[in-house]
Formats: sequence, C-alpha cells, structure tokens
Amino acid sequence: MKKISICVIGSGSLATSLAKILAHNAVLLPHVEDRVNIFVYDELYNDVPLGDIINSRHVNEKYLPMIELPENLVACIDMVETAKLADVIVFAIPRHCILVTCNILMGKIKPNAMAISVIEGFSLKENGEIQLISQEIVKSLKIPCGVLMSVNLANEVALDRYCEATLGCRDLKNIKLYKDLFSAPKFRLTVIDDVECVEVCGFLKHMIAFASGLLDGLETNENTKSACLRFGLIEMIRFIDVFYPGCKLSTFFESCGIADVMTVCRSSRNRRLGEIVVKTGHTVVHLEKQLMGGEMILGTMTVKAVNYLIQQKGLQNKFPLFSTLYNICENKSKPEDLLNSIISNPNIIYHPTKLRPL
Amino acid sequence: MKKISICVIGSGSLATSLAKILAHNAVLLPHVEDRVNIFVYDELYNDVPLGDIINSRHVNEKYLPMIELPENLVACIDMVETAKLADVIVFAIPRHCILVTCNILMGKIKPNAMAISVIEGFSLKENGEIQLISQEIVKSLKIPCGVLMSVNLANEVALDRYCEATLGCRDLKNIKLYKDLFSAPKFRLTVIDDVECVEVCGFLKHMIAFASGLLDGLETNENTKSACLRFGLIEMIRFIDVFYPGCKLSTFFESCGIADVMTVCRSSRNRRLGEIVVKTGHTVVHLEKQLMGGEMILGTMTVKAVNYLIQQKGLQNKFPLFSTLYNICENKSKPEDLLNSIISNPNIIYHPTKLRPL
Repeated sequence: MKKISICVIGSGSLATSLAKILAHNAVLLPHVEDRVNIFVYDELYNDVPLGDIINSRHVNEKYLPMIELPENLVACIDMVETAKLADVIVFAIPRHCILVTCNILMGKIKPNAMAISVIEGFSLKENGEIQLISQEIVKSLKIPCGVLMSVNLANEVALDRYCEATLGCRDLKNIKLYKDLFSAPKFRLTVIDDVECVEVCGFLKHMIAFASGLLDGLETNENTKSACLRFGLIEMIRFIDVFYPGCKLSTFFESCGIADVMTVCRSSRNRRLGEIVVKTGHTVVHLEKQLMGGEMILGTMTVKAVNYLIQQKGLQNKFPLFSTLYNICENKSKPEDLLNSIISNPNIIYHPTKLRPL
Repeated sequence: MKKISICVIGSGSLATSLAKILAHNAVLLPHVEDRVNIFVYDELYNDVPLGDIINSRHVNEKYLPMIELPENLVACIDMVETAKLADVIVFAIPRHCILVTCNILMGKIKPNAMAISVIEGFSLKENGEIQLISQEIVKSLKIPCGVLMSVNLANEVALDRYCEATLGCRDLKNIKLYKDLFSAPKFRLTVIDDVECVEVCGFLKHMIAFASGLLDGLETNENTKSACLRFGLIEMIRFIDVFYPGCKLSTFFESCGIADVMTVCRSSRNRRLGEIVVKTGHTVVHLEKQLMGGEMILGTMTVKAVNYLIQQKGLQNKFPLFSTLYNICENKSKPEDLLNSIISNPNIIYHPTKLRPL
C-alpha cells in the first residue's frame, strides 16, 4: 500500500509548530511517509535563505527560533513541488493569501488529496457576505477540506505547555488518521464532523475577545466580564444557528468553543485592541491604520461582516452585543456604551431551532 | 388587598446588600409593605448593639460599612418577631445555621409564606449525601423555597458595579413579584423555574474555582486553565444530569452557570485556597485547620460530598476532574497531578439523558 504523504503550506510560527508535530508523528506511523515537506517563502533571514536554515540547522530561526525541528521536515520554496505528491495538505498561511495560494496549486495536486486549514478568519464575497476559508479551498482545489482551530499554539508548543484543538472534518473515516498525525503528548486533538461550526467559532470568538478588551480598558469588575462572555457565547450560538443551520450545540463544549473564547478573552491581539481603544481614546479605524497599516484585525473585521448579515435579516435586536460592538467599531457608539448594552441585555436564553442537540 | 410583607434573616454583607435593594423597591411597589424587617444577631459593634446602629444611623457598620441603608429597613434582634408576619422570607445566614434557624421559626410563621434562600452550599445528611438548603427549609417550615445565586454581590453593590443573579422558584406565578423585589438598576435578576439546578450550580462551581486556584498556583498557561474550566463545566452538567434529573441544560447559560463559574475561577476564596495549597506545599486539611479553624471551605466540602455520590454509583471514570480534586483534597495526589489529569482527560462530550434541552 502506498504511504500517505504530508505537506504544510506556510512557515510562520503556527505552521512550523504543527509541522514539527506532523514530522515527529510521521516517523512513528508505518503508513505515513517519513518525509514531511514544508513550503517556505523565498525570503532571507540574516542574509541566508530561510529554507536553507531550516534544512541545514533544523530550526526556523525567523518564526520559531527556540524549537528544534525534526530532520525529516524538509523546507522547499516551490509551492507546487511541496504539495504535488501530498495526500494531506495543511494550509497555514495568512488568510488574505488563500486565493492566490489556491490558484498556484490548482490542477497541480493529487485529485484525491485532502486539505486541512488552520487559518482563522474568512474571506469576503463581493456582496459582503462571509466566505469560509475551507469552502474557498474546496471550491478552488476540488478536494475536501477540514479545519483545525487552536489557540496560540506556537508559543505554547515552544514552552512545552498543554494545548488543545478541535479538528472538524466531514468524513469521519479520517478521524484516526488525523488524530495520529496531529496529536502530541501535550497537544490534545479532538476530531469531530462539525466543520462549519468549528471554523465559524474560530473567528466569532475574536469579537468577544475585542469586547473583553474594551471591558479591561474600562476596568470593569469580574461579574461584568463574565456576563459579556456569557452573552457573547449565547450570540455566537444564535448566529451559527441562524446562518449555519445543521451545526451541533455540542461543538461549543469542545475546545474550539467555550475554551477558546475564554482563552482569547484573556490573551489575544483582538483583546489587546479593545483595551487600547479605551486607553488611548482613539477610534478603531484610526488604531487599525496606525497599528496594522490599515489591515483590519480579525475581531473588528468579523464584527463588520457579522453585522452585515444580521442587518440583512433584520435581526439586530436578537444580537444586542454584536450590534453594540459594530457601533463602537464604526465610531457611532463609545466604548462605555458596551457597559450599558450589557446592563440592558434582555438575557433571553436562546432555544436553537436548527442546531443539532448535544 | 393585604400588602406583601418582606423580611431578611441574616445581617452579613450579602444579607444587608440584598435587604437594601428590597427596602428600596418596597417603597416603590404599591402592593408591598414599605417596612422591610431584617434579623440581626444580638451583637455589639464598638460597644453599641449592631441593630441599634442600623436603626439609628442606617448603616451596617460591621458588615457593609460603606453603604447607606434606607430608613424603611428595620433591624430586629428577635428572629420570630422579624419573620412572623412576613409573606416573603429571605434566608441569608451561614449554611451551618440553617437547621437551628428553621427550628426557631417552625410553626411561628405564616403558613402561606414563601422562602428565598441565598445560601450557597448544602447540608450533609447522616449517610453522607447532599441535602439541599432549600429542601431543608421546605421540610422544616412546610413552605415553598426558591433560591437566589449570585457572586460577591455585597462588595459589588458597594462599588455600584454591575451584577447579575439567577433566582430559581418552582411557582412561575411569582416571577414578576420576585423580579420587582430583587432587581436594581445594576443588578439584573433572571427568574427561572429550575430551582435545583440553580442551587446545585451554586456549590459545584466552587470545585472548579478550587481547581483553577491550583492551576494559578502551578502557574499554568491560559489554555490549561480554559481546558480545566471547560472540563469542569462538562462534569457539572453530567453530575446534575445523573443526580438531579429533570434539570434544564439552558440553566447553565444563565448567570448561575457559565458566568458564575468564570467569575469564581477568577476571584473567590475557593480559588485562593487552591493557590495557597500549591504555594505553601501544605495539605488542604492542614490549611483548612489553619485558616478556617477546621471549618471546611465550600469548594473542598463539595469535592468530598460529590465524590461520595460518584463513588456510590461507581462513576469515577465519568468524572476524572472531580475525582482528581478529591484525591488532592485527601492528600492521595499532589496538585501537579491535576495537570496530568487535564492532559489525559478523555474529553468525551456528554450527551445528557435526563436534562431537559435548551
């Protein structure tokens, strides 16, 4: 039987730390090729090509300098070369690079390959709607695409600290393969079939993180922060119930749901943006320009895209927290209005109509 | 129509802050007696009887010194006098005083009075099982008893900060009355009919807080803390499903559920005990003796009572987190073992069998 071949597209810290796990497991799994390819942009680090550094010194000195990489992880600066023989292709690139990446690979990969996206976020369709990254991959490359959502994995792997992640894939016959490939002693992976819910949780959570940052900036009490997180979670469930029917309520009890929400509310750049908005008194738009060169941070990008969908359906009153966050991002409300929004939240527990139960 | 009369049994900080809200609302509600009685133990503060201080200076100088109390809140050191004409009796006393308090009031109150307990915790039956405080009141006084669970209300009221709480009562015809009585501009009260679940959440959460404190002491990362809270919540739901059949899953999305769990994991004396256990290296039993004069703190008391029930049913493997906490409390495991328990948690999402759905 032909062995399964793995590659990783992307060489940032998350890509590299996952590639390390994959390469480590590949050697141990008899049905998997030892060699794992990783696509590295043709860039220099201290005047040396980064790919050469990875292949000779076995460390990604630019993006994950503290971690020794297995020798069977092989860097390649040709994306097609990297991916063309792979049975499992892991996408770990910035979200705005997905279309060009798919265009490069189109027609150049195995027709029965499988993709896994670890990209948090989404693209925007021309009409302003959300296009899931996994769906973009499926549409372009005509191969199935699962998603793996996790938190701050790179740093945590470096520090040898416990992490967990949820992998959503439609075809449950791959559960064992994916668990074998991506798990590590301190990295728990759960594989479920609720792809859309896992992926959508992966960006909705950043709205709550942004809200949490605003509250940190406002120096509110723990009760208020917990209430915000609770309302945020309820609106996430409601949003997914309305816009992604057929998702499962139980997915919110996986690490991609409630655990990730809590983690990013404690520590993430979306949380930090919220805090800075209050501390500096600047608008979100101004800070995005100043801090990000105009690129929208995921939390605020999500706030706007989500609001577009909610408004289209006239559901603003069902999403009081999300709507308030939109008004703050658009400078139509002040950060302090988030407090009033929480105090006056109708707190109606949602009874999902289209979610599959626990 | 006869007006509704309210009294509060207890004069600690929580009792006093709730009494303030009740007395304030009583004046505004035409069908409620203006005067609200509060039972105050016959004790001196700076050589003056505390009840006299409350009635003359309108402040509870011992337990809530920063808060001005309404003049229609009247202190009384005779418990039977305080309660005998009341239609709504609020119990806000230490949990170990409930039996003696009920014995004093037995046969001396209106037969159609209603009780609300704000007491977190439980009593132990002779066989080691959990006796809910509300059930103890029902059994002794033969009146219905609701429960109101909230977090650190007293301090938060003092600081005029947002709080929320959940009131569980069996008879939903009282929803409006209770909402009118207990709500305040920054104190959101939700009334639901799932009494047992609200009350049991009110003590199970402290187990997770204790676990969270252990992790704080061990200086773990945010992912581990979020995972612990997630597993804790899953085991809370599972425990209530097994031992309190008929409860509702939606109750965990009220403030008494997920929000309270998060709050006490950030700030509570149960969390603090966990942290001290790690930082000092002392056993839980030793610290309880040293810090509490031998009285068990609610979190560890709950760990033991819950473990007793789990063991009786042979369900230890369904509650890996709770069982590990028990072993740590009994000094059979070290705090560090909590990390291993989280890493090796089977992470099986529970599909409730007896819980009513969202």
